[in-house]
Order: sequence, then C-alpha cells, then structure tokens
Amino acid sequence: MYNQTLLMMPGPVPMAESVRGAMLNQAINHRSKQLGDCYSDIVRILQPVFGTKNEILVLSGSGTAGQEAAIGSFAKGKKVASLVNGKFGERLGLISQIYGETTMIESEWGHALNLEALAESLENGAEVVTLVHNETSAAILNPAEEVGKLCKKHDALFILDGITSIGGDVVKADEWGVDVAIVGSQKCLAAPAGLAAVSVSEKAWERLSENRPFYLDLKKAKKSADASPKETPTTPAVPLFMAMREACRLIEEEGIENRIARHRKLSAAVREAGKVWGLAPVPQVDALHAASNTVTGFFYPEGIEDSQIRGFCKKMGIEFAGGQDRFKGKIFRVGNMGIIDTPEILATVATIQLAFKKAGFKLGGDGLEAAAEILSA
Amino acid sequence: MYNQTLLMMPGPVPMAESVRGAMLNQAINHRSKQLGDCYSDIVRILQPVFGTKNEILVLSGSGTAGQEAAIGSFAKGKKVASLVNGKFGERLGLISQIYGETTMIESEWGHALNLEALAESLENGAEVVTLVHNETSAAILNPAEEVGKLCKKHDALFILDGITSIGGDVVKADEWGVDVAIVGSQKCLAAPAGLAAVSVSEKAWERLSENRPFYLDLKKAKKSADASPKETPTTPAVPLFMAMREACRLIEEEGIENRIARHRKLSAAVREAGKVWGLAPVPQVDALHAASNTVTGFFYPEGIEDSQIRGFCKKMGIEFAGGQDRFKGKIFRVGNMGIIDTPEILATVATIQLAFKKAGFKLGGDGLEAAAEILSA
Repeated sequence: MYNQTLLMMPGPVPMAESVRGAMLNQAINHRSKQLGDCYSDIVRILQPVFGTKNEILVLSGSGTAGQEAAIGSFAKGKKVASLVNGKFGERLGLISQIYGETTMIESEWGHALNLEALAESLENGAEVVTLVHNETSAAILNPAEEVGKLCKKHDALFILDGITSIGGDVVKADEWGVDVAIVGSQKCLAAPAGLAAVSVSEKAWERLSENRPFYLDLKKAKKSADASPKETPTTPAVPLFMAMREACRLIEEEGIENRIARHRKLSAAVREAGKVWGLAPVPQVDALHAASNTVTGFFYPEGIEDSQIRGFCKKMGIEFAGGQDRFKGKIFRVGNMGIIDTPEILATVATIQLAFKKAGFKLGGDGLEAAAEILSA
Repeated sequence: MYNQTLLMMPGPVPMAESVRGAMLNQAINHRSKQLGDCYSDIVRILQPVFGTKNEILVLSGSGTAGQEAAIGSFAKGKKVASLVNGKFGERLGLISQIYGETTMIESEWGHALNLEALAESLENGAEVVTLVHNETSAAILNPAEEVGKLCKKHDALFILDGITSIGGDVVKADEWGVDVAIVGSQKCLAAPAGLAAVSVSEKAWERLSENRPFYLDLKKAKKSADASPKETPTTPAVPLFMAMREACRLIEEEGIENRIARHRKLSAAVREAGKVWGLAPVPQVDALHAASNTVTGFFYPEGIEDSQIRGFCKKMGIEFAGGQDRFKGKIFRVGNMGIIDTPEILATVATIQLAFKKAGFKLGGDGLEAAAEILSA
C-alpha cells in the first residue's frame, strides 16, 4: 500500500484493522469489569494456544519483559541451565545470569542443542532450564518436548520462550512439561507490540523465588488476576489489552489448528523457493531440530551483499530481516507470522527472486513457481 | 457520553481523539526513522516539561516500571533514604528495599515529610534519596526543591517520582537538583497508559549500579537512544509511542505554562467547593507542603459512606477515586489531569454536591457556585 511497507519480519507483523481499531476507545478505569472481561477473554483463548490449563498472566511489557518475569520470579538464586543456539537463547541466558547461578550450554547459532551437556548439568543439580522454542535469529525450531522430558526426569523447572512459536506453531505446554511459557504480542498473535503473556504451572508456583523484582513479579500478577473481575498489579497498557483481545478473537475464529496449518504451508513455500534457488538454509536440521515454521532463513551465497537483496526489496516496498549480531550481513530471514497469507508470500518470493537475478546470481530454478505450487495445493 | 463514563481519576484520564487515533497506524519496523523521529519528538517536547536539559528515556511499561528502572539502575546495592507520606512513596520504598539498603522515612499519609530524619540519614551516608513529588494517595504536593537542596548538600542522588506532577504542575528538575525524574503516560500528559519517561543527569550516569535488571536497565535504554535514529533496546510498544507523541504535541500547542495554569485553576475550584461544603482536606498543608494541583482529596464527614457519594456519582456517569489502603472508605479524590477542563469540573462538583444533599449532609454552602466563580475568573 502507498506509504506503507509490507512487513515480512519475524515480528512486528501487520495487524488486522479490527485489532488496530480496538485501540481507539476512550480511556477506562482499569479496575473494572471492562478490563477484567478483556483480560479473561485473552486468557480463555490463549490457554489452548499455549496447550495449557494453567493460569496465564498478561504483562505490560515486551517479550523480553516476559522472559525477565519468568527468570526473576522462578530462577532467582537458583542453579540455571540455559540452552543457547541463537540470539534469543543468549538473551535468556544473560537475564538468567543477573538472577541465578547460570550455566550457558551453547551451540553454534542454528545448530543442534547440546542435550548431553544439559543432562550433565541436570545431574549436577540445575534446578531451572531455559529454552527458546523457535529461535528466530537462526530460523530454527528447537526440541521443546525432548528438553521437557529431561526436565521432568530431574524434577527441574522448565521455562520455555515461545515468543515466536505460540499462536503460529504447535505448543503443548502441559504435555511437554513446560512450567513457564512466554509469548509476545507482536509475533504470531498479530497484536501490537508491548504485551507479554506468561503461563505458570502449579509446580512453578510452589518454587517461587524470594525477593523477586517488583514490576515483573508474577506472584503479584497472579494475585491481581485471581480477583474478580481480573486486575493487574500496576496500571496496564489498556489499549494494547483491547487490541490483544481482538487479535485473540481472530485466532479463535480461524481455529488454532487451521492457523498452524497456514503458518506451516507459508513457511514451506518460502523454504522450497530457497531450495530451488540453491540457497543454504540457516538452521541445521536433524531428527530433533526442524526449520522454523514462522520464519525462514537463508545464507547469502558468496559474493551477494545484503544490500543487493534486502535493499532492493525494501525499495520495492517489502521489508524482511537480515542477520543479527554474528549473522549480520550473512543471512536474510522472511517471517510469515500472524495474518500474513498467500499474496504477501508470493510478492516477497517474487521480489527476492528478482533481486538475486539483478545481483547476477545464477538461480538454480524458478523459486516463485515452486512456492506457488505449495501455496495452491 | 452514552456508554462512556466521565473519568475524573488521578489517572488514567480521558484522551484527545487525535491521541487515540494515532494508534490506528499499521505496524512498523521499530528500528526505523519513523519510530526514531517519534521518540525524538517526545524527548524534545518533554525536556522543558521536566525542566531539564538531560536525556529522557521512554520505557514500555507503567509508571511503576519507571520507578523500578530508576531504582534498579541507580540505587542497587546502595544506601537509600525513601521519603514516605502516602501509598506511592511507600511503593517507591518497597522497590528500593528489593535493590538497596533502604531506610523508610515515614510520616502519616498526607502529613509533612520528616526532613530532619532525612538530613540525619544523609549524615549517616545515604547515597540515594527517593521522593514522590505529587502524592495522589493523599492529594499532597511535596517539597521537591527542599529535598533537592539536602541531596545537593550531601552529594546524594535524588530520584523524583513526578508521575502525577510532570505535565500538570511546575517541575524544574535541573534547578532543583533532581538526578532522575519519572513521569507516567496516563496522567497529566493524557496519553494512554503503558509508557514511562525517565530523565537522567550526568551525575547519575557516573554512579550507575552494577548488575542492573535487564528489561528496565536505563544504561541499555540510553545506548539505544543515543543511536540515530533513536531506538529502544527491546521492542517498544509502538502504538503507545505514537499516541504519546501526539499527546506531547498537544502540550506544545497549549504551552506548558498555560497548561499548568489551567491545572491550578481547576484544582483550586474543587478545593474551594470542598471548603464551602465544610469538608476537611486530606493534605496537611504548611510552608513547605501544598495541596496537589492535579488531584484534590477530602475526608468524608462522620456518617457519610463512600457509596453514598462515589456510588451516586458513578450512577450519574462520573467516576472519581476513593481512598487506597488505609484511606479506603475514608476519603474521595477528584483528579483534574491532562485535558480535563471547565465543563468536567462543573459537572463533577455539581454531582458531588447533589450526592451530599441526598445523603442528608448539611452543606456549609453552595460549592458549585464557589467553583464556578473561580472557573469563570
């Protein structure tokens, strides 16, 4: 659209008109049935999306605030094992280091997690394990279920960052033994940036840390959420709650299974295009690790500059992500989160194909046709 | 308006249509000129409103998040003296207790601060002082300038919670020796709830605490804000930034002096009405302490129930605040923050007067007339 870039990022993502419109309302008293009902609707709709029957708490802050709420409330003063194979795993580890005695179990970005080292860490008394489920920095989907099994075996708390998987891919928090799961509003939920939602198991509540942070204390959040109507301990970002409820309502309308199937189809189309072009995918896939279904990443071939591909696409009105930190300039990543659908994927794949052609790269084949094949199936 | 309560709270407050409309925009990449320009506009307009030439950082979180960012970044591991004469001073003290070695210097709610005890605490090595400037829980305006003088004398850092004064009353952060000043978005700025803005002096930056919290680390916020275009360290609540810029633009249009004069006139009208009715004001005013200019509080007379006054007014479509915690059921508080103006004050004073009449209280006189006298001056 004129003066409006098509955002194909791994968050933030385009929002439905009705979601944006929900923010137009005049201010309300947030200690009210209006806010309480809104909060209740969000929780009711998100529970099956998280795969949990546990309480879900909504925080006025970004996904990082959700990460810190989980760590500060349940890992403070404890032995923590942080699994890392990308930027967001690293961030979760850095936050853990502020609060607990943390062992970072690092792999190369986008490579398999070191589950042997995790088992060892658990043998040595790790009480809390942190994992980023869908690591967007490397476009990889990590084996949350396997990590959950190890946590169960050693009776450790399992904190799962599902910021970019929940609402777009399968998450079964209860079945996988996840104690604390986190989602961000501006990813697969397609709500505005600025909220995090966190589910907490009974086991986690029994192991609450002492001297927790104030603003991000999940105990306080639970106490307020237990009120009727639901409340928040401090003033909530009301317009974002209203927008989040509408975004959740759209998820309910689509059905979470349909939504996940849509995300999988869209990412499969982008993956296939890259394969046909002859690009190397960023994630190293094996029996346990899969390519992400909400963001797809490729390495640039030798001699191709980030500016030639992303720069051209941006000029054409389409913006997707480059690499972060150590991947800067080396990879590009196309998101397909939230309400992104077929036209946006087609436009993006077509434009990337053009960009590579213009850059003089000899494409292995017609990626657009390959993508269209999958999308039309 | 139909189906829309007139909010006369000490925050949240009604917002201008243009402020709410600013949230309608489609999602943007927040690492962009669009967000950076928005952030810059907010800072430029807020600097004179804070009375500072210091950098101002905008955080995606409520005023409490701003309080914790200040404490966690500059008071962690230090000796803190927390001045308390109401609920929000107490909260600032509670947050300080999580991070530093904190002495709470408490007065009765709404009574004068104990500045002798503060001087003693500073003699004994307090390195940081916290104060709530405008304590809404007791409708009192505390002597920030005096506290600043004591801090300067003892070379202590001065953290001022200006959450409900900045934008509605005089704040001269630099002149008063304030090192860290905090404002919330949904108070006198009349923006939606969910943002805090914090100014930080050079002296404060030189005394940054170690091992700060992650999400609310002001050092990280500064590093990102120093970029061009300005950024935030984690995903910002973009719609709230857009709305905040528009709210700031309206402040610039009105002029901060005019805005403060308006707030003072409106609160003077409510105070005068209460005086004429024969109600006892909540704040104990003296040479240093004044009644708040952004919220006005009165004790209920013997035999009058909160439900008879606030309940009746709510039924009539006007909502203001009762007492919190120890003041619950004992006081009522009428806010006049942000874009509240003459019609809203007249409607509120008239309705309260009716409520007292209906409750059988013998009024000392016509408060509505007295208020109108001031408002029409």
